[in-house]
Amino acid sequence: MKRSIALISTGGTIEKTYDELRGVLSNQVSVLDIMLASLELRGVDIQRVQLMNKDSLDMSPEDHTLIAQIATRLAEAHAGVVVVHGTDRLAVSGERVVELAGTPASPIVLTGAIRPYELRSTDALQNLTEALLAVQLLPAGVYVAMHNQVLQFPGVIKDRNAGTFVKEP
Amino acid sequence: MKRSIALISTGGTIEKTYDELRGVLSNQVSVLDIMLASLELRGVDIQRVQLMNKDSLDMSPEDHTLIAQIATRLAEAHAGVVVVHGTDRLAVSGERVVELAGTPASPIVLTGAIRPYELRSTDALQNLTEALLAVQLLPAGVYVAMHNQVLQFPGVIKDRNAGTFVKEP
Amino acid sequence: MKRSIALISTGGTIEKTYDELRGVLSNQVSVLDIMLASLELRGVDIQRVQLMNKDSLDMSPEDHTLIAQIATRLAEAHAGVVVVHGTDRLAVSGERVVELAGTPASPIVLTGAIRPYELRSTDALQNLTEALLAVQLLPAGVYVAMHNQVLQFPGVIKDRNAGTFVKEP
Amino acid sequence: MKRSIALISTGGTIEKTYDELRGVLSNQVSVLDIMLASLELRGVDIQRVQLMNKDSLDMSPEDHTLIAQIATRLAEAHAGVVVVHGTDRLAVSGERVVELAGTPASPIVLTGAIRPYELRSTDALQNLTEALLAVQLLPAGVYVAMHNQVLQFPGVIKDRNAGTFVKEP
Repeated sequence: MKRSIALISTGGTIEKTYDELRGVLSNQVSVLDIMLASLELRGVDIQRVQLMNKDSLDMSPEDHTLIAQIATRLAEAHAGVVVVHGTDRLAVSGERVVELAGTPASPIVLTGAIRPYELRSTDALQNLTEALLAVQLLPAGVYVAMHNQVLQFPGVIKDRNAGTFVKEP
Repeated sequence: MKRSIALISTGGTIEKTYDELRGVLSNQVSVLDIMLASLELRGVDIQRVQLMNKDSLDMSPEDHTLIAQIATRLAEAHAGVVVVHGTDRLAVSGERVVELAGTPASPIVLTGAIRPYELRSTDALQNLTEALLAVQLLPAGVYVAMHNQVLQFPGVIKDRNAGTFVKEP
Repeated sequence: MKRSIALISTGGTIEKTYDELRGVLSNQVSVLDIMLASLELRGVDIQRVQLMNKDSLDMSPEDHTLIAQIATRLAEAHAGVVVVHGTDRLAVSGERVVELAGTPASPIVLTGAIRPYELRSTDALQNLTEALLAVQLLPAGVYVAMHNQVLQFPGVIKDRNAGTFVKEP
Repeated sequence: MKRSIALISTGGTIEKTYDELRGVLSNQVSVLDIMLASLELRGVDIQRVQLMNKDSLDMSPEDHTLIAQIATRLAEAHAGVVVVHGTDRLAVSGERVVELAGTPASPIVLTGAIRPYELRSTDALQNLTEALLAVQLLPAGVYVAMHNQVLQFPGVIKDRNAGTFVKEP
C-alpha cells in the first residue's frame, strides 16, 4: 500500500527554467510535475502543494516561517512531507521547523539541487528520488536528503564551496 | 564520514548496451561506472566488485549461490552491500541470501531495471540512486530497492505484468 | 515560405522502440513524430506518410518497389521527399528509385540510423536533421543523407564495418 | 574525401555553460568540442578556430569586423567556413562579411542557438548539424543555417519574437 506523502514546492534552482527572450534561468513555471512523471513511483501517493516559486535568496523570514508551519501541519495529516527548496536558504527553513515543532508528527525531508533540472547534466532527479525514498524509511524528524546523503536538523549547513550540505562542526 | 559499501554487479537489463553490428541490446561491457560518475555520491565510499555480466535468465543455480555467498561475505567487511542484478531472477538471489545467511551482518540491497541505462528513458539511475541511499538507512537484512519502494526478503516476487516487485500475497 | 515535403517512414533501426516485456528493440510503434517534435522546423511543411514499419532485412523485393513507386509519385506532388529507412537495405530502395524514375521530379533523400532514437546516444536526430535540410538544398535526384555526408544514387553502398554509406569504388 | 572546413567559435547562447556558484549561464568555457564529439562527421575535416567567447550583445564593432575578416580569409584556404555566433548580433557579422568580401571564396555559414547546448532541450545540435551540412552543399556566399532553414545575406534579420531568422521584408 502506498504511503500518502505531501510534496511542497517552494522554488529554488531545481525548478528554474530557461527564459529564451531574456536568456536567463529563473523561477517562473514549476517543472516538478515533469520530474515526477519521469520517475516510477510505487511507494508513495503524492499530494502536491505548490506554495511559492522563489529563489531562496529572495525568501523573507515570513516565507521561511510559512514553509515551516505548512510542513509541520501537513506532517500530521500525511505519512511524510517532502519540501523542494532553494539550497541557499534551505537550512533556514529546516531549522525553523525544528524551532516550531521539535519533532514533527512524521518525517519532513527537504531537498533541492545545485544544477537545475532543465540542464542536460543535473542533480535534480537524483535528489528528488532520494527525498521520496528517504521519507519512507526515516523516523519522524527533520532532514535534508541530497547527494546520496541524509542529514538531520538541527545543525545542518550548506557548504557553498563543496556545493552540498554538511553537519555543523 | 562516508560509509564503505560494496557494489556487486552481475549484469541484467540495467547494464545492457547496444551492439551496432548485431542491432541488439546485450550484456557485454558494464556501464555501471558511467552511471556512478553521473551521480553525486557523498554518503558512500564504493568498492566495485564485478562478479559476472549475465542476463539473469541465463543464471545457473550455482550463479545465484555464488552471488549470495559473495554478498553475505562482503556484508561482514562493509557497512552495506548493493547488488545490481537482472530483475527476472533477482528474487532467486535475494531468497538465496536469506537461506544462507538469515540476517546478514549489514544490509544487502538488490536492484535492477526494467529499461537499460542505455535508453533515453530508463529507470536505471532512479533504482541505483535508491539502492545507494537505502543501504545507508536500513537495518541489517536483505532487500530490493526499486521504483521508489523498498521490500524485504523473504517473500518478494517479480510482478512481470506490472514490471516491478511486490510482496507475495 | 515553407517547402512542402513528403516524409515516408518505412521503419528500420531509427524507429525501433524498446519492448519491456520481451527486453528487445523492435519496429512496433513509430517514434518519428516524437523526433519531429523535438526539432525546430521553419523550412519545411511536412506531410507524413507511414508506409510500413519494418526492419529492412525483412523487406521483400515488392516492399522496395512499393517504396520506390510511392517516393517517385510523391516527388511529383511535393518540393521534395524524405524516406526514413533501415540502413541494411536502404541502398536497394535507393537504386530502385533510379531504375524506375531516373531523375525524379524533385529530390528524394533517404536516411536512417545506426543507433535507434530510443538510445541515450544515437545518430537518429542528426540524420533526420540532415535529410530535412538536404532536401531543400539539393537538385532533383536520389540521395542518402547521413553522418554529415550526402551521396547520390546510383552507386551508393553500405559499409557495414564503418557503419555508414560510401560510393562504390 | 572529406572537405576541409574552418569552424570559428565566437561564443553566444549556444556555448553558454552553467556556473554553479553564481547560478547563471555564461560564456566561460567552450562546449563546442563536446557537441562535435557527439556528431558523426564523415563529410568534413574540421579546423577549429577559437576566436572569442562572448555574448554577441557584448560585441564591439571591431569584434564584428574581426570575425568578418577572419572568416573571409579562411574561406580562401578552406572549402568552407562555419561561424558559431550569438544570435542577437549574428546578422551584424553576416552583413559585415558581405560588405568586406562580397562573395567570399567559399561558403561562409553562420549559426547559433536560442537555447544553450547545456540545456536538456536545445536547438544547439540541430543548428550545428545543419551548418556543417549546408557548408558542403551551398555555392560560395554568406548564409545563416538554423532551424531547418538556410537564408542568404545580405538582408537577413533576427525575428526576436519568433526566436529565429527571417529575410527582411
